[in-house]
Amino acid sequence: MNSLPRAEVLNTGSELLAGSVLNTLLPYLAEQLFPLGLRIQRQATVPDGAAIKDAILEAASRCEFIFITGGLGPTSDDLTRDLVADLTNRTLQYNETIFRKIKARFEQRGLRLTDRIARQAYVPEGATILPNDFGTAPGLYVPARVAIPHLFLFPGPPRELRPMFEAYALTILRDLVGKHDLDGRIFRTSGLGESYIEEMVGDALEGIPGLETGYCARLGEVDVRVIGPGVTVAAADRIIRSKLAPYIITTENKELEEIVVELLRDKGATLAIAESCTGGLLASRITDVPGASQVFLEGNVTYSNEAKTRTLAVPDEMITRFGAVSEEVAAAMAEGARNRAGSTFSLATTGIAGPDGGTPEKPVGTVFIGLAAEGTTTEVQKLFFPMDRLSFKRITSHYALDMLRRRGG
Amino acid sequence: MNSLPRAEVLNTGSELLAGSVLNTLLPYLAEQLFPLGLRIQRQATVPDGAAIKDAILEAASRCEFIFITGGLGPTSDDLTRDLVADLTNRTLQYNETIFRKIKARFEQRGLRLTDRIARQAYVPEGATILPNDFGTAPGLYVPARVAIPHLFLFPGPPRELRPMFEAYALTILRDLVGKHDLDGRIFRTSGLGESYIEEMVGDALEGIPGLETGYCARLGEVDVRVIGPGVTVAAADRIIRSKLAPYIITTENKELEEIVVELLRDKGATLAIAESCTGGLLASRITDVPGASQVFLEGNVTYSNEAKTRTLAVPDEMITRFGAVSEEVAAAMAEGARNRAGSTFSLATTGIAGPDGGTPEKPVGTVFIGLAAEGTTTEVQKLFFPMDRLSFKRITSHYALDMLRRRGG
Repeated sequence: MNSLPRAEVLNTGSELLAGSVLNTLLPYLAEQLFPLGLRIQRQATVPDGAAIKDAILEAASRCEFIFITGGLGPTSDDLTRDLVADLTNRTLQYNETIFRKIKARFEQRGLRLTDRIARQAYVPEGATILPNDFGTAPGLYVPARVAIPHLFLFPGPPRELRPMFEAYALTILRDLVGKHDLDGRIFRTSGLGESYIEEMVGDALEGIPGLETGYCARLGEVDVRVIGPGVTVAAADRIIRSKLAPYIITTENKELEEIVVELLRDKGATLAIAESCTGGLLASRITDVPGASQVFLEGNVTYSNEAKTRTLAVPDEMITRFGAVSEEVAAAMAEGARNRAGSTFSLATTGIAGPDGGTPEKPVGTVFIGLAAEGTTTEVQKLFFPMDRLSFKRITSHYALDMLRRRGG
Repeated sequence: MNSLPRAEVLNTGSELLAGSVLNTLLPYLAEQLFPLGLRIQRQATVPDGAAIKDAILEAASRCEFIFITGGLGPTSDDLTRDLVADLTNRTLQYNETIFRKIKARFEQRGLRLTDRIARQAYVPEGATILPNDFGTAPGLYVPARVAIPHLFLFPGPPRELRPMFEAYALTILRDLVGKHDLDGRIFRTSGLGESYIEEMVGDALEGIPGLETGYCARLGEVDVRVIGPGVTVAAADRIIRSKLAPYIITTENKELEEIVVELLRDKGATLAIAESCTGGLLASRITDVPGASQVFLEGNVTYSNEAKTRTLAVPDEMITRFGAVSEEVAAAMAEGARNRAGSTFSLATTGIAGPDGGTPEKPVGTVFIGLAAEGTTTEVQKLFFPMDRLSFKRITSHYALDMLRRRGG
């Protein structure tokens, strides 16, 4: 494994350090680079400006590839292009093709070109341009020079970087890296805690020489990651599958919502959703999946009690007697949604997301999830997630999707 | 500004580098530390294991505070505690109180204690324990020693770190940092591109000595950030407000959904939502806001045409004649949702999220947003967001919320 090239990621952008933006670029790059045999050994975020230079020099001694994001835009704090040219002793050359492309983009949108925009048309000599089909600043590949690794420069906005990476950077990288034997797999499990999982498989996995193992607890899931040469990963795979089979959701790094949509599509089944406490998140996760419209018919975010009665035909008296957060109402919501849409399955959530609304009998975090299906009794699960509102919504939607997955559908 | 203490963040966790988890801890810490006068100068992500030691030593020469997350758990790749003890020449001491607390937590949940769990009860001598009220591994404050900055160690799961930080770390930090004159403000704007914004305010802001300015383009927004001593930020504030007033959404780092919920609550108005292409995301963003139930009545995720007709009373013929993605249907959906719920306002979205479903007249990315209100004509906006499905959903929901915000409601 030591002969594999090493990669680091440098994210520039004061907004990342100021906390106003989440770094979604790192996970994206990790996922793209792994199949090429490139593992990210380290990542750093540095402010816009000169710090990027120190960071490149530090990383240079540790790796063969540096992927740099941000700082290619038109504003005065976008300095990556200039600093990289300086560091690699390359002059910046004006590129008329890039300028014309930017100009055309502005004209097409009826926007006026400002002076600052032209900055983006300068390229360090010897660099390969990675065209930007979804924005103005092009990316750059700057080949390795003595003491400086291969540098890939990308714009910061994910919706510009992603298509650029896939259309233009991948082929260059494949060429540079060549063949390799790095393999890896992530087992996403649900239903067991992190320490139980390690107890069940840890010793056996540690017995495989050259295998790296990692555990990661997330909301509602524990991931087991194994990385190593192909033969070690195959050995780990057999152990994990034999011991953890019922808990494994997927090994394809798919989201639970993708798995559920695929299951439904494969059996020609349809889904309706009734949400109270998850407030639309469950439907939104399902509709994140391309092709969701083939299986998802309708969602009802019945936040008020009136909406539960009006749209899902939950009897008024039932709400009064048992409360909106109850097993009875969860079942009635699920059945109401299924009847309304005429779907094969339906899911319903009702709970107390907080911070207010808890009672001693039903504290904040209490939730009921209902699953109704053609020709069977409606199933209701009572759970307790005493956590912040967003985590509560997220984990509740997760358990709802998993309930449907376990039902095979 | 140079006399302010400097901070760095070190996130450990192979799962962060492998791309399976988003780093939400950095933005959280940035937001919490800023009011204390602590700005994060740099952040690094290192794998679980020994690399954390090198990273601490590197950061040590650049800063007075290091905030370290992860690697405090029970599994064999959780090494932060041991490495920090080693690095600071402190022995690890078994702490009976921590062990008893962990044991009680397990018993309360009916879980069996594994051997590995006890690792979490060891503490470097001289460190202050930061109790974990939402998990097992406690955090640690390890005071500065010659050549080693103050170290704060936190568990990796955000729902454990956040309450721990606020309940136990904040007071220690306030004490260590003392008074300061660092001020900063983020102006979130919508409606103008990044280079226009800089053209309008850039020169004037550059004229303020000691002020740092940054621009950040996000989906549907551009942030202008100014940081510096109080008096410079006040001067920048006057300039920005005078030139960008109509475009400023907020200066309080609030989400658009928070602003909308507050506006509605203040005027005693209510909201209903009808979603096709945003698939529940719009309702989910509204219900992310605590207290949303005071203003939000019902959401209808009418994904199928039948659902649009059945639930929102959109005429069949209208869908046949104009298509489900049309100005007419957007208006009818908004009105249908408002009539159904009896709300003051309603928002509706219908569009083509892709990757399939586009036509030459209505390519992928086409979207109509409807806004209906008591006693006025329904307003429909046609927009075009040719981007990936998740960005499309996000930006469409953003424009919908902003439409309601501009209506003052």
